[in-house]
Amino acid sequence: MLGQILQPEIKDLINSRDFSSLKEVLDDWTPADIADLLSDLPDHEQAILFRILPKDIATDTFEYLDVDVQLSLLKALGNEEVAFILNDMSPDDRTAMLEEVPASILKQMMNLLSVKERHVAQSLLGYPENSVGRLMTPDYLAIREDWTVQEVLDYIRKHGKDIETLNIIYITNEKGKLIDDIRIGEFLLAPLELNVNDLMDGNFTYLQVFDDQEKAVEVFKKYDRIAIPVTDSSGILVGIVTVDDVLDVAEEEATEDFQKLGAVEALEDSYAAIPLLQMIKKRAGWLSVLFVGELFTASAMGFFEHEISKAVVLALFVPLIISSGGNSGSQAATLVIRALSLGEVTIRDWYFVMKREIISGLILGTILAILGFLRITLWQNFSGIYGPHWLPIAFTVSFALVGVVMWGTLMGSMLPLGLKKIGFDPAASSAPFVATLVDVTGLMIYFSIALLLLKGTLL
Amino acid sequence: MLGQILQPEIKDLINSRDFSSLKEVLDDWTPADIADLLSDLPDHEQAILFRILPKDIATDTFEYLDVDVQLSLLKALGNEEVAFILNDMSPDDRTAMLEEVPASILKQMMNLLSVKERHVAQSLLGYPENSVGRLMTPDYLAIREDWTVQEVLDYIRKHGKDIETLNIIYITNEKGKLIDDIRIGEFLLAPLELNVNDLMDGNFTYLQVFDDQEKAVEVFKKYDRIAIPVTDSSGILVGIVTVDDVLDVAEEEATEDFQKLGAVEALEDSYAAIPLLQMIKKRAGWLSVLFVGELFTASAMGFFEHEISKAVVLALFVPLIISSGGNSGSQAATLVIRALSLGEVTIRDWYFVMKREIISGLILGTILAILGFLRITLWQNFSGIYGPHWLPIAFTVSFALVGVVMWGTLMGSMLPLGLKKIGFDPAASSAPFVATLVDVTGLMIYFSIALLLLKGTLL
Repeated sequence: MLGQILQPEIKDLINSRDFSSLKEVLDDWTPADIADLLSDLPDHEQAILFRILPKDIATDTFEYLDVDVQLSLLKALGNEEVAFILNDMSPDDRTAMLEEVPASILKQMMNLLSVKERHVAQSLLGYPENSVGRLMTPDYLAIREDWTVQEVLDYIRKHGKDIETLNIIYITNEKGKLIDDIRIGEFLLAPLELNVNDLMDGNFTYLQVFDDQEKAVEVFKKYDRIAIPVTDSSGILVGIVTVDDVLDVAEEEATEDFQKLGAVEALEDSYAAIPLLQMIKKRAGWLSVLFVGELFTASAMGFFEHEISKAVVLALFVPLIISSGGNSGSQAATLVIRALSLGEVTIRDWYFVMKREIISGLILGTILAILGFLRITLWQNFSGIYGPHWLPIAFTVSFALVGVVMWGTLMGSMLPLGLKKIGFDPAASSAPFVATLVDVTGLMIYFSIALLLLKGTLL
Repeated sequence: MLGQILQPEIKDLINSRDFSSLKEVLDDWTPADIADLLSDLPDHEQAILFRILPKDIATDTFEYLDVDVQLSLLKALGNEEVAFILNDMSPDDRTAMLEEVPASILKQMMNLLSVKERHVAQSLLGYPENSVGRLMTPDYLAIREDWTVQEVLDYIRKHGKDIETLNIIYITNEKGKLIDDIRIGEFLLAPLELNVNDLMDGNFTYLQVFDDQEKAVEVFKKYDRIAIPVTDSSGILVGIVTVDDVLDVAEEEATEDFQKLGAVEALEDSYAAIPLLQMIKKRAGWLSVLFVGELFTASAMGFFEHEISKAVVLALFVPLIISSGGNSGSQAATLVIRALSLGEVTIRDWYFVMKREIISGLILGTILAILGFLRITLWQNFSGIYGPHWLPIAFTVSFALVGVVMWGTLMGSMLPLGLKKIGFDPAASSAPFVATLVDVTGLMIYFSIALLLLKGTLL
């Protein structure tokens, strides 16, 4: 926001190489705002602006940039500058960036790291993608239980520089095993001569390095923490995950689920930034699959071609019938997918869900059936458009609506549960996917009811 | 999780009134886990279990419960117990609960609060729903800039009890105006004789009480903070918002957008907890609106009834054509709605989006057209089902697909932008809504092309 308002002025200062005024303007800005401004500048001006930033906020600013801006900026900077930033960055942000770097450049960058930082980077990159290991930072303070509060405060004063968060202090035993965590506030409130183990309650929540990042989101939501420690399989403390990284993961996941619901493969980049062809690829796959599924409607219609040619009026209601099934199916799928992803229902609740959706489908279908019946009756009275057999036609459409809507809600709700049961992502049962499935069966339901009710009159 | 595994054992202990063993088992549990267990118990057992909790964790546990469980629990407890919990709760959690209480009970509860807490509760409830004011807690520490670090630490030690977060300390002037915030870690690392204003950088981010809660989510995402101060319109510090509350708001918002995309009004409660009839009401509205929209397809089809009766083969492809338009429209709407809600694109980018979607639609439509053409050609060669005029039919279907898919992507992408422009929620342009709009126009496109290409042969 701020960046956009001031950008013309900033541009003038860059163009006129008035670096001292530039420095003065940026002095009051937060790194997050400077990062916003940088992202809005053309490539060649980014490096100019970045170079005039004081060293102590340059890395902070860098960490707020999107990965693609980070990489283009690194290309424009000299080796020494790159080395400074890479070594100064916090490990979790650095890992997020290095993951996106092509292998050849990754090797160059690793060489620019100090031995210690390279070690950290390699160990973080060694964990599988989407694991908690990739998300964690090894910047934390661990203390022993036999220390006094005074000793802890002295230790913090001595070793607290460069630590990502001092808000929670971790207690480990002589083997490095996590035995408790204590909020910094408790040390500040406790008498200085007290022992750490007098403050301990043995209650702590932790994640393991190989846990999925989705689990991290769940744990943070449940326990309302700002940082959660991470251990290896033997309980040794190896890092912490902070809530700001988890907020990003939660948002990414919500976006993925959202895009899947709309039958788009999850985009790896924002809508505005992703190359056009890549986006089309993400959409063409699902669209083609749905199209091939939808081709069966042509077969289903072909199967009833004889009936349609005898009673063309039946064809008029085909879009109405199948879209009602699709819409009710989309609703049910939406509700169940989101409830599954929030943990509100689990696979074991399938019977509860099924009962609810059958009743819902029956009631919703009846509402639409009444609307449909009224519509046909009204139009008939005005224009006689549906001929002498309008009443059995109205009944056919109404009964078909009840059946199709019930079928739609049932499929829409059970499909996500079924996918989850066999180990797939329930969000893969996108709304259009459910709609396509319901279209083919909806046609069968409609024409079967028509055969039953119109045999001997229209058919 | 833990709760579910141990529940039978716990139930036995409750049934046999073995409170001492119960106490022992729960001793190792976190408030979040006890809250989970409580929620799984039947109503009458909740109060029994809750009463045996030690006072110091009872309120913590209470804060983790869902509002409906909180209220049913309060009903089962005595006035004195209720008064203790209400006064002990943190103001933001209490506000979240009081918002859901019927007015008559709200008055009773307010009377149970101490004068000080009642004042806090009333002031928080005075802010509009979905405002930052409702989300904030007045539990924070504010200091003056002329204090020394030692004085600050002493002050924290004296006044830090019951403060929601000690992680960030706020600096105000003599009028209570916020002038800076400093992380607790800085005080711990600084020499004790230093002045607060030596640590100040004048860089701070804040929210205002009347800001929308969505703005709070944005600001937290941008600045990676764990708490952000809240001021009134004149800059006076009145409270802070913590990241755990914002994580909940972000999730709620994502759920709302998700449900709207699936054409369900946002549910006020979880899928499992909401009463069946209330859920049906949330679905029936949209479903009926879509149905009424879809009724126009019957009119559109009726408009071309003469053509259909002459060439029934045209009817066979109707579901295929309209669903392809609907699906491509859903994709486009999904992408644009999410990009809007994440701020990746704004209304001003409409021209960029339009260009992208026209090109996307052209390419995607062409892919489907080729698939459709192949399908008709293949089936024709096998069975001759489409008669002597199969080639113009195949061209009709293919051109219609290109037109309908382009139209779908264009409508799907422009509708959310248009809604936002006129001040509506872009998420209201749900995927099924776009599909319905495209269905009617898709039929017009299809039959118009048919008239053009088949005049003189089939029509």
